[in-house]
Amino acid sequence: MKKGVLVIISGFSGAGKGTVTKNLVKRYDQYALSISATSRAPRPGEREGIDYFFKTKEEFEKMIREDAFIEYAMYVGNYYGTPKDYVFGQLEAGKDVILEIEVQGALQVKAKMPDAVTVFMTTPSASVLKERLFGRGTETDELIADRLARARVEAELINKYDYIVVNNDLEECIAGLHQLIQSQHCRASQNIEFMADIKKQLEEI
Amino acid sequence: MKKGVLVIISGFSGAGKGTVTKNLVKRYDQYALSISATSRAPRPGEREGIDYFFKTKEEFEKMIREDAFIEYAMYVGNYYGTPKDYVFGQLEAGKDVILEIEVQGALQVKAKMPDAVTVFMTTPSASVLKERLFGRGTETDELIADRLARARVEAELINKYDYIVVNNDLEECIAGLHQLIQSQHCRASQNIEFMADIKKQLEEI
Repeated sequence: MKKGVLVIISGFSGAGKGTVTKNLVKRYDQYALSISATSRAPRPGEREGIDYFFKTKEEFEKMIREDAFIEYAMYVGNYYGTPKDYVFGQLEAGKDVILEIEVQGALQVKAKMPDAVTVFMTTPSASVLKERLFGRGTETDELIADRLARARVEAELINKYDYIVVNNDLEECIAGLHQLIQSQHCRASQNIEFMADIKKQLEEI
Repeated sequence: MKKGVLVIISGFSGAGKGTVTKNLVKRYDQYALSISATSRAPRPGEREGIDYFFKTKEEFEKMIREDAFIEYAMYVGNYYGTPKDYVFGQLEAGKDVILEIEVQGALQVKAKMPDAVTVFMTTPSASVLKERLFGRGTETDELIADRLARARVEAELINKYDYIVVNNDLEECIAGLHQLIQSQHCRASQNIEFMADIKKQLEEI
């Protein structure tokens, strides 16, 4: 079984990364979405092992001590983290695992796991981003200003990503990202066994 | 105009890289094949600026002194090299330039131009390679042994390449390589201007 590719996706709030990744997972068996662990209480309708792995604070801290997370952070008094077990298990099973994660966490994971492919998703322009945030119709002006401020901070770090994917047309974006990820199966780092085999065969032929 | 991607393709003799690259160039306007300069005399039917740029030994050496080559080498008493002018001109014009080049030269170019994408093409196995070399029917046993010996040396360096492309089925290989190269347009290094623009727009919005 060939190992899968670990894909870390970040992007401006409003760039549509949630929609794009959900569609990838829905359309292709090839993908698995990483599931986060959290110490916050489940909300109505949230399911264990689908929406989150729910942990007590003590369980979460035990996992931290056991180095069981790829990355974790505390947010508004609750822990959130990416359990290694689930991600590594899916990769070993040949799935391409998509990790949707904010910029700081993404770059931390990349530093620890250089074989991960980092993708930053953006709208074609800042004005389109603003339009999409207003277009949702659910967000206050204050929240939109807050998201644009965060986008400014994130923009400083885009150049640390491997790839920039522009979400102009949703279908094109899904197709393009799928091709990009599938191409990564050709990376030398994904083919170490294959290269060793060829070498051995050439010596024996 | 967005700059093109520089693609360096190497591979075992018999892996089919000539056929694959010829098909890419024939099918898609997007590609330009790099044209080598040489100090050897034109053979019947060879055309200036299509098969080679023909130079005298003196002209070639003047170009070496002027640092006009991406890489060059001497082979059986003649110079062969890749002129910067042609490659850089095509990249600026937005073409993806394919440079078909042997392993040592490829890694030299990559060291000087880290944004180049290096691809190594191989058969699915060593036995398939041997079959294809025999299957040509034009090569002596000695020549085949020589090619396999060279393949053994090349195999030591495959892991230095960015991507390994397996040529099992020709059509699949062409399609896969095309997708791989087109995905490289999303690399951060290809989108420096775009990222600077978005950053500036976000500050002004």
